[in-house]
Amino acid sequence: MTYDIAAFRQAIGPVHCEDNPVLVRQKSRDFYWYSPILKRELDAVVADLIVTPNNEADVAAILAAAYSLRIPVTPRGTGTGNYGQAMPLAGGVVLNMAAMDKVKSISPGRVVSEPGAVIAAIDARTRQGGQELRMHPSTYATASIGGFVAGGSGGVGSIRWGGLRDLGNILRLRVLTMEATPRALELTGEDLHKAAHAYGTNGVITEVEMPLTAAYEWVDLIVGFATFEAASAYANALGEEDGLLAKLITVVASPAPHDYFLRHRHLIARDQSVVLAMVAEQSLDALRAFTRRYKGAGVLFDSSLASPEERKGLPPNYELAWNHTTLRALRVEPAITYLQALYPFPDQLATVKRIHDHFGAEVTGHLEFVRFNGKVTCFGLPLVRFTTAERLDEIMAIHEAMGAPIFNAHRYTLEEGGMKQTDSVQLAFKKEADPRGLLNPGKMVAWEDPDFDYRAGSNFLFPGLEARARAAGA
Amino acid sequence: MTYDIAAFRQAIGPVHCEDNPVLVRQKSRDFYWYSPILKRELDAVVADLIVTPNNEADVAAILAAAYSLRIPVTPRGTGTGNYGQAMPLAGGVVLNMAAMDKVKSISPGRVVSEPGAVIAAIDARTRQGGQELRMHPSTYATASIGGFVAGGSGGVGSIRWGGLRDLGNILRLRVLTMEATPRALELTGEDLHKAAHAYGTNGVITEVEMPLTAAYEWVDLIVGFATFEAASAYANALGEEDGLLAKLITVVASPAPHDYFLRHRHLIARDQSVVLAMVAEQSLDALRAFTRRYKGAGVLFDSSLASPEERKGLPPNYELAWNHTTLRALRVEPAITYLQALYPFPDQLATVKRIHDHFGAEVTGHLEFVRFNGKVTCFGLPLVRFTTAERLDEIMAIHEAMGAPIFNAHRYTLEEGGMKQTDSVQLAFKKEADPRGLLNPGKMVAWEDPDFDYRAGSNFLFPGLEARARAAGA
Repeated sequence: MTYDIAAFRQAIGPVHCEDNPVLVRQKSRDFYWYSPILKRELDAVVADLIVTPNNEADVAAILAAAYSLRIPVTPRGTGTGNYGQAMPLAGGVVLNMAAMDKVKSISPGRVVSEPGAVIAAIDARTRQGGQELRMHPSTYATASIGGFVAGGSGGVGSIRWGGLRDLGNILRLRVLTMEATPRALELTGEDLHKAAHAYGTNGVITEVEMPLTAAYEWVDLIVGFATFEAASAYANALGEEDGLLAKLITVVASPAPHDYFLRHRHLIARDQSVVLAMVAEQSLDALRAFTRRYKGAGVLFDSSLASPEERKGLPPNYELAWNHTTLRALRVEPAITYLQALYPFPDQLATVKRIHDHFGAEVTGHLEFVRFNGKVTCFGLPLVRFTTAERLDEIMAIHEAMGAPIFNAHRYTLEEGGMKQTDSVQLAFKKEADPRGLLNPGKMVAWEDPDFDYRAGSNFLFPGLEARARAAGA
Repeated sequence: MTYDIAAFRQAIGPVHCEDNPVLVRQKSRDFYWYSPILKRELDAVVADLIVTPNNEADVAAILAAAYSLRIPVTPRGTGTGNYGQAMPLAGGVVLNMAAMDKVKSISPGRVVSEPGAVIAAIDARTRQGGQELRMHPSTYATASIGGFVAGGSGGVGSIRWGGLRDLGNILRLRVLTMEATPRALELTGEDLHKAAHAYGTNGVITEVEMPLTAAYEWVDLIVGFATFEAASAYANALGEEDGLLAKLITVVASPAPHDYFLRHRHLIARDQSVVLAMVAEQSLDALRAFTRRYKGAGVLFDSSLASPEERKGLPPNYELAWNHTTLRALRVEPAITYLQALYPFPDQLATVKRIHDHFGAEVTGHLEFVRFNGKVTCFGLPLVRFTTAERLDEIMAIHEAMGAPIFNAHRYTLEEGGMKQTDSVQLAFKKEADPRGLLNPGKMVAWEDPDFDYRAGSNFLFPGLEARARAAGA
């Protein structure tokens, strides 16, 4: 499949374009390679051109030109996703939003920014007034707010606020449609579900309004336990302490903390499972009192007590958590990959134990406690020693059979990574906002193959990927 | 029982004293009269003297003098309690903390104040820097922070933060002991349980440090429903919306809102049950989207849309909630009293329905949704048409039999109003901090009668009350 890129460049005039193959390749990928499956499937994916708009008018010009020339457009933040969210399966144009990074306004409880603003940069601005974002991914330092909203689901802060899908955690999205004359739509309330976590398949986000909360000095604590079970029980109970303000509660089973957290290794014995917590300074006394209730809980690290010397070179706890746990494991053991599971309330601790007892060393426990539908429970991002795709599927099937629904991290489509069913709201919005199906093709199964059977056991393969590979080989 | 008040006045020197009988009587009572039982039992309670310290040194002088003369001392905030918490059952001295009302320091996440500072006055100061207290009683405008901590348990804000008993919701208490030479003790972490919610029976709070959270513009909403059941289901689900920042979620069954909320009567039909909510301005869109999911939910009032004219004279929602609901009912129907029940998670809605179906019009539903041990559930402060003490006891017994534990609002002791068992932490601290048992006598059963049997069916009667009555009659 080839596109008239020359005509496209002509049509968009002065908007910055990049066609240096090294840079195009770099901006055509994300952290899909955490999955050996996606690595194999997506390694060859590459755009024809990277375009970098400076403002919404540039985006409109790009979308209009690409619409008329039938060139696919895949919006991209900073490419910190893990499922190929921003990878251009059918080639064409990658719409790099990095230059649209302005923080436009800050008011009590609200920040409005362009989508390319990096989350840490937004917080740096809002913290001057004592406010910060409610939640962020472990890629706080590099992820863009637009990418988080379009491709993420929650993370650090979800123990207090739930996920991005929850009402109130995104205030407003301004979205351009991909039509002959792109329209700007303002989405609020229930309408946010049209475009949030849609991978940019049904509109291009040009402005994001997010809620703010009080900014605190967050203290990193690492608490060691003799068993994963004891660490999990402590973490669950900590999550249920309504007056103790925590932003992160992570459990990592031994020997992963010692083996993979190299900078922290001197603090952690190999047989220790740990809880990683971020707690507001105001809740430190409470945290300490809470911890003393647990025999066998040992505080291995407390950033509020550590000297500058001791803190030097230590990554913050959030860079040990969520998918940074996977990253650190991968760096040490390249054969590691991961799953995404939910251990449903109220049986989460028993389900975790049952599943991990079943797998032993093949699957190392990693839990992220969150508020989910009003209750405290945990997601798992367990570390898996990968052998074959078939075994990986089997491990996931066993999780589901044992009561832990899987959000498949080894699929590039919205549905297979999510609820395994058509999202009729997102699909309807795509029909309205992207009538030619040019936005991030191949990511929404419901658009590409309405009759796809999720229960048939095989994953969706985007025909455009193969066509593209053939064209490249030809 | 008489005390050497003259010697006491001599000993404390220049500290302000009040012995005008009208004023002494006024400062010897609280809102105990919401309960017909307490009204009968406590109506005659009166101190011999009101003393009003200006600072901790004054408090120390008062406690030392009273200790040496064996005069009871009952600390008092602004007397907004409902169980006689600050009423001097054995006479003696009421220690009026009202003049110790300084806000001493405000920093990110923390406020330090003297105990007599009124909660609304503290917030007025902290809001200048974008912060506010996590929670307050419905008596926000008049209650003191020391009284709230010593005699309250939670309230507005508990839907987000749980109760005062939860770790992290009080940061530090400075407490003077009642000894020959009073000592100042600083309580933090687990030690806070020694003196918090102890009615001043085991120490006098002279400084309070509380956590702050982000200050928001809180919007009052009143949402109407055809049934109490529908209103309860909406309220419960609203409480479980983790991303929707609410500070108050109250349900009042018809016809109470129309009959008792006189200023709001024109907004509410007599057959409507209502949900009263306080929602952060940033969560308004989310609240509206949430509400649209409920057929039959009608927004009767939204303070963000009301004109100044429409808002004029309307009390804020928090002054319709918690025990202000009772107050408004009492003003219209003097025979009304109330209960305090917990409807335990996860069966709260079924328990509420079962109990209210059982009682009908004798007990009108009033729910306060809270986070309790990490889950959203509700307390009830149902309105009861009082007939006899026996029937009131029976109504409470039926509640307990039907699954709703009662915190008896018709008892003046800590234990009978609470867990109906000895609080060994509070008792041990009293032995240490008040060896002569002179602080707020008669409120801690475990001190007065260690062998009292809570299951015997009769309530604890403080012998000092009767002795005092005899002395007054003699």
